[in-house]
Amino acid sequence: MTESKKAALSIVKIGGNIVDNPQALESFLNDFHQLEGHKLLVHGGGVMASKMAKQLGIETKMIHGRRITDEETLKLVTMVYAGWGNKNIVALLQKTGCNAIGLSGADANTIPAIRRSPVPIDFGFAGDPDPDKTNTDFISQLIESGITPVFCAITHDGSGSLLNTNADTIAYTLATALSEKYLVTIYYCFEKEGVMMDVNDPTSMILTMTREEYETYKQKGIIVDGMIPKLDNSFRAIENGVSKVVILHAKNLLSGKGTTLG
Amino acid sequence: MTESKKAALSIVKIGGNIVDNPQALESFLNDFHQLEGHKLLVHGGGVMASKMAKQLGIETKMIHGRRITDEETLKLVTMVYAGWGNKNIVALLQKTGCNAIGLSGADANTIPAIRRSPVPIDFGFAGDPDPDKTNTDFISQLIESGITPVFCAITHDGSGSLLNTNADTIAYTLATALSEKYLVTIYYCFEKEGVMMDVNDPTSMILTMTREEYETYKQKGIIVDGMIPKLDNSFRAIENGVSKVVILHAKNLLSGKGTTLG
Repeated sequence: MTESKKAALSIVKIGGNIVDNPQALESFLNDFHQLEGHKLLVHGGGVMASKMAKQLGIETKMIHGRRITDEETLKLVTMVYAGWGNKNIVALLQKTGCNAIGLSGADANTIPAIRRSPVPIDFGFAGDPDPDKTNTDFISQLIESGITPVFCAITHDGSGSLLNTNADTIAYTLATALSEKYLVTIYYCFEKEGVMMDVNDPTSMILTMTREEYETYKQKGIIVDGMIPKLDNSFRAIENGVSKVVILHAKNLLSGKGTTLG
Repeated sequence: MTESKKAALSIVKIGGNIVDNPQALESFLNDFHQLEGHKLLVHGGGVMASKMAKQLGIETKMIHGRRITDEETLKLVTMVYAGWGNKNIVALLQKTGCNAIGLSGADANTIPAIRRSPVPIDFGFAGDPDPDKTNTDFISQLIESGITPVFCAITHDGSGSLLNTNADTIAYTLATALSEKYLVTIYYCFEKEGVMMDVNDPTSMILTMTREEYETYKQKGIIVDGMIPKLDNSFRAIENGVSKVVILHAKNLLSGKGTTLG
């Protein structure tokens, strides 16, 4: 499809900190409802999963910020992400008048994934989706029918196993796959207002950033740690057909104020 | 639509005892996959919910066999029913080649419900669906696309609250609503092979039963206790357009051997 004929699609990703905060969540979902045009939501749920793990006496094991998903943990995250987390969001969106449908990647085989190799680190039931196998026909049918898909961070391997999958990666996968049919903007919501030149100076937000500028900031040690996988992921999305990526605070979704990559 | 032009639709309901038994569940789902024609699955999850409640130290309160759903219990049952219970079934069906999609009544507003009146008994976040408001257009679009809906026993009130709903009632609601478009058979799977004249005599199964026969059995005290709401519900479904109701053991799904009402 030629770019000019494509309709716009906003893919918004929110993290577990919002999902676990009833006031922030409801306020965000009211904004999300007001976002014009086609849209799709991807949510995490890690904060709630860690709390629930503690209540159940299940030890939370993390390596490089990623959860090790043994069988017990897979049940737990599926309960939290696909259960209360996802359905609570859907019910709240229905209240605003947004006709939401909650999905995991197993539902209608929307996001087939491959269980991550146990070498060098065994992350257990952790899955990496294959963008080429994403079921974009079904997802775009929903979107064209005026239905808003709400994805949790669970996929499956097609052989009967659910897989825990990073929510940023789900957003990336859906965005790149759907960019064949839509002009996709990804909104990665996180706890800061954007990417900062100096994390201690709230006025130092970078408004726009090219790939070249990003490489320079990385080399100079201005952009470090947790921002690097997020930005690598974002620039890879742009290289793979996504029109624009905005990194911003959830409260600024409607204004779009944040760091725009492209 | 005239009866003769309607396609057949099987609505199968399984209880929490199968959902919580990995071997029985996988065996059942293999049979379900082989069931010919359009189909839809409704599942409970009460056994798993009670176990999880115990693990979390949440007291399970039941009145007349129905769970009292306070806020904490609502979160719990949504996690169990819509989360692990539902998505595990979907992933296992995908493995068989059955293109399943897991849904709660909140998803795409498929089953709007009304929170049950707190008088005479306050069941908390318990919902009674309204068959006239069931979103049959969306559900039949899925079915016609070759997708098999898998419903858990969670609905919503349209005002942001999820509601715990009896799985038999979900099956009844979907069956009566969809009988406008399909020739619907309900298969209520339970722990016995059918309705028994004498619960202690496995050879005493009733093969077919009319409404009149049922009334006679009730008056004579042959059919008692837990079977009464199940059968009342079944005959009401037939009065409201459902073609046939079969009460049977899950292992006999493919042979259809059980008690047939109609």
